[in-house]
Amino acid sequence: MKHSLGAKPLLMPNPVLIVGTYDKKGKPNLMNAAWGGICCSEPPCVALGIRSERKTYSNMQETHAFTVNIPSMAQVKEADYVGIYSGKQQDKFSRTGLTAVPSALVNAPYVEEFPMLLECTIRKEIDLGTHVLVIGEIVDVKIDDVVRENDRPIIEQIKPMVFDFESCTYYAVGDKVASAFSIGKEIGG
Amino acid sequence: MKHSLGAKPLLMPNPVLIVGTYDKKGKPNLMNAAWGGICCSEPPCVALGIRSERKTYSNMQETHAFTVNIPSMAQVKEADYVGIYSGKQQDKFSRTGLTAVPSALVNAPYVEEFPMLLECTIRKEIDLGTHVLVIGEIVDVKIDDVVRENDRPIIEQIKPMVFDFESCTYYAVGDKVASAFSIGKEIGG
Repeated sequence: MKHSLGAKPLLMPNPVLIVGTYDKKGKPNLMNAAWGGICCSEPPCVALGIRSERKTYSNMQETHAFTVNIPSMAQVKEADYVGIYSGKQQDKFSRTGLTAVPSALVNAPYVEEFPMLLECTIRKEIDLGTHVLVIGEIVDVKIDDVVRENDRPIIEQIKPMVFDFESCTYYAVGDKVASAFSIGKEIGG
Repeated sequence: MKHSLGAKPLLMPNPVLIVGTYDKKGKPNLMNAAWGGICCSEPPCVALGIRSERKTYSNMQETHAFTVNIPSMAQVKEADYVGIYSGKQQDKFSRTGLTAVPSALVNAPYVEEFPMLLECTIRKEIDLGTHVLVIGEIVDVKIDDVVRENDRPIIEQIKPMVFDFESCTYYAVGDKVASAFSIGKEIGG
């Protein structure tokens, strides 16, 4: 028996994505976004739902670029901090001690200490209501040397987090459940 | 030192979302989508990146509706199966034994056996290249009675999965890392 919760923005799991932008003076800022994901493979694109009153959104209007930084679970305090406070009030890089590295490819900073990041130029924006869906074309993906194997990022070394809205909790990625494009063949083959 | 991987559609973590649609004759179909997420809170919207050659996409052109069903880790075989085969070749409900329930709110079927689902009408489509970004307005969220507490879905009982593209692996959601809007105050407060 299903129970109705009404029209709500609920989904599981959500990612923990830290979005890096510059303001018009070149000051770097970070925000924590749980509403985002890949949306196209060629050209590779990522979509983020962002409130238009956010500092990050006004920065995007100036620079037309952003980075998506993926923190490791050891960096949960920094990730949560950038989601609580506004860049209008606090300098998030100096407060956290994180290092803003200027991307050589897009007009946005990335976080040196986080193990993985996407450098993006803004391709399209769609105003949906409380949020604008910002679609970025991924110009490059960068990862730390220690979290890769044969030029692939290793999720068990990156240790990205899941954000659960209902319990306001960050979770780790857990154990392997099954191989994809494999276990399902037991049904279809 | 960061290592460049080039322009690729990489992000972590990705969800495991099973999209339910009808074709024009009312035959239900399912697909497995890893590229999707919430994108607006009011009105609540979800965005999915879908290849236009998919049966699911042609179904959406007929019905302008879909469901997003969230399988539990115990249902990984069924979830993987619907991602391997095409509804053009196989009847995914009869093969898996899953039950297609007609939504009373939108013109799409949902999966009775999965613990959580979103019922959506299509609000907008944006052609991005290989994929079309389909934005659905969430009309209702439904969950099993056993996975809720005070009208909230409990992630530790739903047990949704994470999909890792690089290793082609489904992972569980793991241990709690920290409370959100809380641990970050140690930096900002």
